[in-house]
Amino acid sequence: MSLLVVGSVAFDSIQTPHGKVDGILGGAATYFSVAASWFAPVRVVAVVGEDFGEEHLRVFANRSIDISGLERTGGKTFRWSGEYAGSMNEARTLDTQLNVFERFAPKIPASYLESEYVFLANIDPILQLHVREQLPQARLVGLDSMNFWIHGKAEELKKILARVDLLVINETEARMLSGDSNLKRAAAAIQKMGPRILVLKRGEYGANLYAQNSIFAAPGYPLDKVHDPTGAGDTFAGGFMGYLAQTGDLSENSLRRAVIYGSVMASFAVEDFGLRRLLTLDPGQIVARFREFKNLTHFDV
Amino acid sequence: MSLLVVGSVAFDSIQTPHGKVDGILGGAATYFSVAASWFAPVRVVAVVGEDFGEEHLRVFANRSIDISGLERTGGKTFRWSGEYAGSMNEARTLDTQLNVFERFAPKIPASYLESEYVFLANIDPILQLHVREQLPQARLVGLDSMNFWIHGKAEELKKILARVDLLVINETEARMLSGDSNLKRAAAAIQKMGPRILVLKRGEYGANLYAQNSIFAAPGYPLDKVHDPTGAGDTFAGGFMGYLAQTGDLSENSLRRAVIYGSVMASFAVEDFGLRRLLTLDPGQIVARFREFKNLTHFDV
Repeated sequence: MSLLVVGSVAFDSIQTPHGKVDGILGGAATYFSVAASWFAPVRVVAVVGEDFGEEHLRVFANRSIDISGLERTGGKTFRWSGEYAGSMNEARTLDTQLNVFERFAPKIPASYLESEYVFLANIDPILQLHVREQLPQARLVGLDSMNFWIHGKAEELKKILARVDLLVINETEARMLSGDSNLKRAAAAIQKMGPRILVLKRGEYGANLYAQNSIFAAPGYPLDKVHDPTGAGDTFAGGFMGYLAQTGDLSENSLRRAVIYGSVMASFAVEDFGLRRLLTLDPGQIVARFREFKNLTHFDV
Repeated sequence: MSLLVVGSVAFDSIQTPHGKVDGILGGAATYFSVAASWFAPVRVVAVVGEDFGEEHLRVFANRSIDISGLERTGGKTFRWSGEYAGSMNEARTLDTQLNVFERFAPKIPASYLESEYVFLANIDPILQLHVREQLPQARLVGLDSMNFWIHGKAEELKKILARVDLLVINETEARMLSGDSNLKRAAAAIQKMGPRILVLKRGEYGANLYAQNSIFAAPGYPLDKVHDPTGAGDTFAGGFMGYLAQTGDLSENSLRRAVIYGSVMASFAVEDFGLRRLLTLDPGQIVARFREFKNLTHFDV
């Protein structure tokens, strides 16, 4: 089943203790769609500038990602620059140039309108709501957001929250959104705002899934070396929703497996800069790491 | 099989967002032995002062903990005072009065000498080594330590590390001890120092077990309210070693279950101040929460 993502496509400049890259392809919609493309057909709605070349379009084409909704307009593509230090859990933003992303008005191509799985990556909640309204028949709508909108557009965010099935945010954002420092209580408060499924991302500690009546805890994958955490959260969301779109199974068991597939994809993403590792995977490696997650958490009762 | 713990017995004064208690029974050996007593016979080596009354001795007696090795001497019992705020992951020490603990010289009663399971709680590594040498036949020797000894008595700590089977420390301590910020590499470096089994405690995020050839990740138990984190680490160690002493099974499967039983006991401990919850448990509650941990982490392959 088809999976639609609306979000940013960007050029990133990144410095970590393991190296430095300049102007590589990134952005939430990019990481999401590449990760999800290992599971299901993906469609992208995003905007890029005149500096977006054939080589960048090929990245999507090579993964069979539908970019009919990728608008190319005058001006420059969104650029972000940041660095990671120490335990590398948080990026320090050095520079943000919104460029064409500043006036992003998502246009959904007619061919996308029957998409059953939709992910609204982190953009202005007004735009997220606008997209949501054009896709009333979607079976599962997922949402990401961030502190900037939680503080700056709380009312608009609440409106879109009431219209989604799934929210994928990190712990800090969950505490901010709910006003509660205890995560179990925060999760319950957020689920009352709309999303019946909540995934709390915990960085190197993994992710927790709050479903209708149960909690599922997935660990982080222990890695010798984290090269670049950029896009890990969007990659997680891509693996998660990609798996659900592939199977069409929204049972709790399936949601749990989706969390693990999201974690699998994120664990690959951080092994190298940008999209490198996600583009050189093969299905066998994905399955093998899924089994490693099982071995990492299994105990006999 | 009998389990021996050497460590502190103290009076704690604790303030958390949920209340305040003054001079309640605490200390590493206390939390450890009470937690372990739900699984196996426990023996304590510790020192207390003249202010240690019948009511305190009764706490151990009621749990059938052997206190032949609890030395009562002139002076006052070790007193600690601290507070927790915010996410409550770390205590702020307000006052420490070592009192009789300052000259603690652990004496192992003859009746303890055949103990097969030994836990050396966080005390001076010189004393830990001294105890270890008196128990050459022990089947499993576990160790705890802290930043104070890692920095101040590095050489002495390395000597005792080379003589133990198990080390239970938190992530920050593991990074300090190994000099590596990456936990997987840190774990490998620490295992080379001696302990073939390493448990890294991660506070609310649970614990990771590094055994001979595999890693096991146990989540933290999601709680609505954490009343008091004091003693959670020692309680974890007590549940962990108590389970191993009960079963006598040191297979990897058993070590994994031990991590879960340690997590179960720690999750109870923090539900109320001091030892309150650990003293009012029943075996059915322990088994039920063990199953909840299974449900929290299970997914179908």
